[in-house]
Amino acid sequence: MTGALDPERIVRLEEDAVVVLDQRRLPDELSELRCRDAAELADAIRVLAVRGAPAIGVAAAYGMALAAATAADLDEAYETLAASRPTAVNLRWALDEMRADPSRERARRIHADEVERCRRMGAHAAELMPPSARILTHCNAGGLATGGYGSAVGAIRAAAERGGVAHVWVDETRPLLQGARLTAFELEALGIPHAVIVDGAAASRMAAGEVDVVVTGADRIARNGDTANKIGTYGLAVLARYHAIPFVIVAPTSTIDPAAEDGAAIPIEERDGAEVTGRFPARNPAFDVTPGELISAIVTEEGVHRAPYAASLPAPVSVR
Amino acid sequence: MTGALDPERIVRLEEDAVVVLDQRRLPDELSELRCRDAAELADAIRVLAVRGAPAIGVAAAYGMALAAATAADLDEAYETLAASRPTAVNLRWALDEMRADPSRERARRIHADEVERCRRMGAHAAELMPPSARILTHCNAGGLATGGYGSAVGAIRAAAERGGVAHVWVDETRPLLQGARLTAFELEALGIPHAVIVDGAAASRMAAGEVDVVVTGADRIARNGDTANKIGTYGLAVLARYHAIPFVIVAPTSTIDPAAEDGAAIPIEERDGAEVTGRFPARNPAFDVTPGELISAIVTEEGVHRAPYAASLPAPVSVR
Repeated sequence: MTGALDPERIVRLEEDAVVVLDQRRLPDELSELRCRDAAELADAIRVLAVRGAPAIGVAAAYGMALAAATAADLDEAYETLAASRPTAVNLRWALDEMRADPSRERARRIHADEVERCRRMGAHAAELMPPSARILTHCNAGGLATGGYGSAVGAIRAAAERGGVAHVWVDETRPLLQGARLTAFELEALGIPHAVIVDGAAASRMAAGEVDVVVTGADRIARNGDTANKIGTYGLAVLARYHAIPFVIVAPTSTIDPAAEDGAAIPIEERDGAEVTGRFPARNPAFDVTPGELISAIVTEEGVHRAPYAASLPAPVSVR
Repeated sequence: MTGALDPERIVRLEEDAVVVLDQRRLPDELSELRCRDAAELADAIRVLAVRGAPAIGVAAAYGMALAAATAADLDEAYETLAASRPTAVNLRWALDEMRADPSRERARRIHADEVERCRRMGAHAAELMPPSARILTHCNAGGLATGGYGSAVGAIRAAAERGGVAHVWVDETRPLLQGARLTAFELEALGIPHAVIVDGAAASRMAAGEVDVVVTGADRIARNGDTANKIGTYGLAVLARYHAIPFVIVAPTSTIDPAAEDGAAIPIEERDGAEVTGRFPARNPAFDVTPGELISAIVTEEGVHRAPYAASLPAPVSVR
């Protein structure tokens, strides 16, 4: 099953299409979706066939390369892809990286670079994990979300490779169950001990002393460290603070938005209430914002950053 | 649809059966389940066809009356029903009430009494709601859970009758979605404005200043006020404290366990992990314990009780 986590399998560029592993169908089916132009790829991003901020950025980079290769209008491809989801800033970062040189080689370099960043983040973040760590994570910040290896799951992998992970609590992450469907799938493939819990069960696991550290990814990080991530992350950060448990964000520098002074500048995507319940009125914000003051450390490929983040966070790093 | 919330519809005693509205099928179907003896009723309780601590107690009282009327072994009926679910203490309270006089009349009095307690609790609790309250609730502590009217939802109803409820945030309450399926169903029937949110979205609604008070029911209350309720309740209490929002428990005195000095004495039911995910390892505790120190008030039919609860909580009151 680890084959499903190969970077090429998660997202790749072919002659006439960007091909993504359809994450909506995991873990039951390993099926691929062929996106033949920017509009089809934007749809795939919108419906979450490909999701996770860094993976969206990589897919969009391939989308720009495809547009250039097929002589499509590059500005239109840029706008179409940029509009697909509002919160993840890696998307716009990757599009900007590609605008100057929309070649296949550059898109592949962005992809390879994001995987390499994850390995470096993982190594930095593993330093923060206690021996035999019992880790709680939310949503999927794994290989699937990043185009390979993973950010929060990358940290877990790196810690496990050093023999240091006793157990991972996997928040199922409603409404779309990225934890129960995707993170558990990745941890099973990696052979790391884990158990899925409902999101509401995290607090009592903390109270029982069964969580040493909380680790999540991020969709956008403001200059002051305020971090947008999957709905439920902010509550976990409050709970971690209450139980004196470190709360760590792991994300590549492409997730940092130098234009966002603080969390108030981050747009929060409201998705269809039918993802929550088809029968009654619902509200369905896909993300929430965790204030930097609740975050023990933000780990990027550049290292471990601590508050005050306005001084410690690096700028987004371009591809080599 | 309000007919579905008639006490007789939720649970009733017929000549040869205890008949319960099958809450597993709500809101899609209004179907009834006929339980012809204590064993069938215990199964219905175990699979959550009838659920909610006070409603379980009422159903068990009818089960004892049925056993007596059909000349079944009463001690066996007591043990069978007592073993059906471990956390709700109203079950044992109702069984003890019935042991001395297992008549149909007494069971019906227990039922009518629980509904009347809910009305009194509702009136007391409504006093704690600010004008145009924006209330957040978890799980279903409504008419369905109590045999009629409701505890936490009773408080919302009573406040709404006084013109005082602007909006109710309904936690969907994974894994079995009692909020999204049952509480939303009740609020729709009652014409009270509401929206379902995933459990992980409660924190950001609080941070946005959109929650004035959190109100839930309870499955067992220890003498010091420590309260077992649906998994996720403890986390909400921590979040409410962090955001300086009152956190109120509404439950009849039959929920108080004089034998439990504190929360450590309350057994927590672990249910099948398949309720969370069928595919990966899971942990599925059905309840958590909120320390009394995080609870702003406990409201019973006797009034509003404040910390220190060891001094303020009344003893369980028998039926008239």
